[in-house]
Amino acid sequence: MRAEILAIGTELLLGQIANENARHLSRVLAELGVDVFYHVTVGDNPGRIDGALKAALERSDLVLITGGLGPTADDITRERVAAVTGRPLHLHPPSLQAIEAVFARTGRPMAASNRKQALLPEGALALPNPVGTAPGAVLDIGRATVVMLPGPPAELTPMVHDHLVPYLEGRLRVGGELKIITSRVLKLAGIGESTAEARIADLIAAQGNPTIAPLAGQAGEVSIRITAKAAGRAEAVALIEPVEAAIRARLGSHIYGTDDDTLAAVVARALARRGSTLAVAESCTGGLLGHLLTSLPGSSAFFERGLVVYSNRSKVEHCGVDPLLLERHGAVSAEVAAALAEGVRRLAATDFSLAVTGIAGPGGGSTDKPVGLVFAGLAGGGATLAAGRRLPGDRGTVKRRACLFALELLWQRLEGHGGTGPGSSNPHP
Amino acid sequence: MRAEILAIGTELLLGQIANENARHLSRVLAELGVDVFYHVTVGDNPGRIDGALKAALERSDLVLITGGLGPTADDITRERVAAVTGRPLHLHPPSLQAIEAVFARTGRPMAASNRKQALLPEGALALPNPVGTAPGAVLDIGRATVVMLPGPPAELTPMVHDHLVPYLEGRLRVGGELKIITSRVLKLAGIGESTAEARIADLIAAQGNPTIAPLAGQAGEVSIRITAKAAGRAEAVALIEPVEAAIRARLGSHIYGTDDDTLAAVVARALARRGSTLAVAESCTGGLLGHLLTSLPGSSAFFERGLVVYSNRSKVEHCGVDPLLLERHGAVSAEVAAALAEGVRRLAATDFSLAVTGIAGPGGGSTDKPVGLVFAGLAGGGATLAAGRRLPGDRGTVKRRACLFALELLWQRLEGHGGTGPGSSNPHP
Repeated sequence: MRAEILAIGTELLLGQIANENARHLSRVLAELGVDVFYHVTVGDNPGRIDGALKAALERSDLVLITGGLGPTADDITRERVAAVTGRPLHLHPPSLQAIEAVFARTGRPMAASNRKQALLPEGALALPNPVGTAPGAVLDIGRATVVMLPGPPAELTPMVHDHLVPYLEGRLRVGGELKIITSRVLKLAGIGESTAEARIADLIAAQGNPTIAPLAGQAGEVSIRITAKAAGRAEAVALIEPVEAAIRARLGSHIYGTDDDTLAAVVARALARRGSTLAVAESCTGGLLGHLLTSLPGSSAFFERGLVVYSNRSKVEHCGVDPLLLERHGAVSAEVAAALAEGVRRLAATDFSLAVTGIAGPGGGSTDKPVGLVFAGLAGGGATLAAGRRLPGDRGTVKRRACLFALELLWQRLEGHGGTGPGSSNPHP
Repeated sequence: MRAEILAIGTELLLGQIANENARHLSRVLAELGVDVFYHVTVGDNPGRIDGALKAALERSDLVLITGGLGPTADDITRERVAAVTGRPLHLHPPSLQAIEAVFARTGRPMAASNRKQALLPEGALALPNPVGTAPGAVLDIGRATVVMLPGPPAELTPMVHDHLVPYLEGRLRVGGELKIITSRVLKLAGIGESTAEARIADLIAAQGNPTIAPLAGQAGEVSIRITAKAAGRAEAVALIEPVEAAIRARLGSHIYGTDDDTLAAVVARALARRGSTLAVAESCTGGLLGHLLTSLPGSSAFFERGLVVYSNRSKVEHCGVDPLLLERHGAVSAEVAAALAEGVRRLAATDFSLAVTGIAGPGGGSTDKPVGLVFAGLAGGGATLAAGRRLPGDRGTVKRRACLFALELLWQRLEGHGGTGPGSSNPHP
């Protein structure tokens, strides 16, 4: 079954909102094994709605339309579906009663315009709307099935979950088409997207079901998505497992987690699990490292304190950094990163500590120490370690990447991996 | 000029991400007065990319393509644009140099696959990518203009702002088509959306060109957008000014800035302007307050240090909070917020200091001190002040709102406004 999502709404074309409905519906369809080949958005315009709907009916088996079911004059989805499919609109009494009940409950008078929301194309099945006034509809026209859904996500979401998914599951089961798509995402640290891809190039070249796709995130995070299609979830997972094992054999020492894991959350969980504590001293990241580590509930179990030692004086006072060290190597140096990590760990009496110092930019760079140069330090659980990297991006990106760099050092030590990844242990790249 | 946005990426059709790029580009085009008639998304599939691109070139004057410019094998936008437009790809040496420079800077080896990112269709103008490796491109093929943009928003956003918008403005000006839609957003603090709206209800009722819209942000930020449409920017601004003056007459003492101003940035600029210094002590916000204050360039001029005093021990050790005070009132109290602010200011010898302590949740709440209860303290420039608020939302939202609450106290003191806004000075709401 090939599906297409047609969104109707000028507010989407004006950029007032993102098309979250298309994202949500796509995920639901993927999990049912239905291929989505197109998302199309048009405004509240009869000609363009008709054109998009005709094109969709020619190339897709299932067309999900979102929006345009409201009571106002610019809500014309019902009329256009009726016109294009040749199925005239009729009043659907149960839907009218449901709309009247909504108004009775809220004590507001029902406007005459709400009556048109109870119109359905001939032969359509109504999808009840427990939240708002507009019912959805499923209309089978032989060569394709058209589904109309309300635009507000608060109305669309329960309708999809409670009515559309069971309907589609039933149809796919009868047709022998029920195919579950399941993905597993492997999250990587300390390696670039192209290097990671090169190491599994033969696996990608040989891919079938499952497919393998390397992805790069906004702050340089690298991940690999494995997607399998099967008749059921267990079969899909069984297809993914050997591929995951093969990728782990090549890249295992770089894989810190799966799916929605973040490096900060994985480090936080590892610390909490072993009952270890952490303190941080950060300069260029200005508090972001502490913020990331305290973003998950329960962080007070391991996070003891953080010092945002922005000024040189605070580096000396709080972390006991030798002023001579600052003078000789500068605040942005491997030596000062190590001294900050050791200082904050001594002070907080924690098992581990992390330190970050660098030049977030755009100002403050020099030939010797350019913008983006960042040093991270780690103390505890072995010898103190400091490493440098030149990080690309604007101020915000450098701050985010610097946090990931520091977290990488701690993750590698907690996991017992040596080194800090290719090219990263050179303090002056 | 009729525009269309064509997004390429299977991850969009699988529902892994929403099409934020389409939203962003649509807003940018709306502000230039360019009509967007279609958003279309297809996967990394040559046949469907070609079909969508041909349809777009037939019905639109400007086709913005996002995604598919990466180095991997499934990134095929360049090849498909070349094939459909009949413009063969050539190596663009300045782009290759820029890509090589990115790898040289970061000390990572450049993969052979990155070389293809420097290929451009014949006659295309390159759009530099200061963040990543893939340049964008503008290709005029007579009947339409095709623009290729990278998929990652961190790369797309600066490219659109720095290169695409000036290019489009120039073209629209030459064509006499430039119809500027200009907005001014007034940013408010210390007042709720409905109270603000009520104070300007008559102005909203009488609106025409410009329009007036109150908006509420994710962390409770309130703003008012004034939007005017005119032939040029100066004319649009002239329409906005009297409306802005009328709104300022009603709400002036709550307006901290305009447009992209954030409360943190306004406070940072005010401190830098008067040569004042700031230190912060934060508990439940975990470093986020420091992060926000150091997000703008030049923050080292005023930000002396931050202490993330997560544990009670660190509150005592760093800020000299009396252990008896912690015992009597608890860490989440107006008394401890004031003591933290005074302690960190004494230690850092700064002109001002801020402190935040609270319960970010979801755990840790009680009947007496529920989740969301936050106290902020301010020292310097007058008497020490501490205030409490019960903030709604999940852990992340409470952290963000708590930072805004603390910044509001400092902004009001810097501006010489008394009080902390309606209802905010009650420590036990």
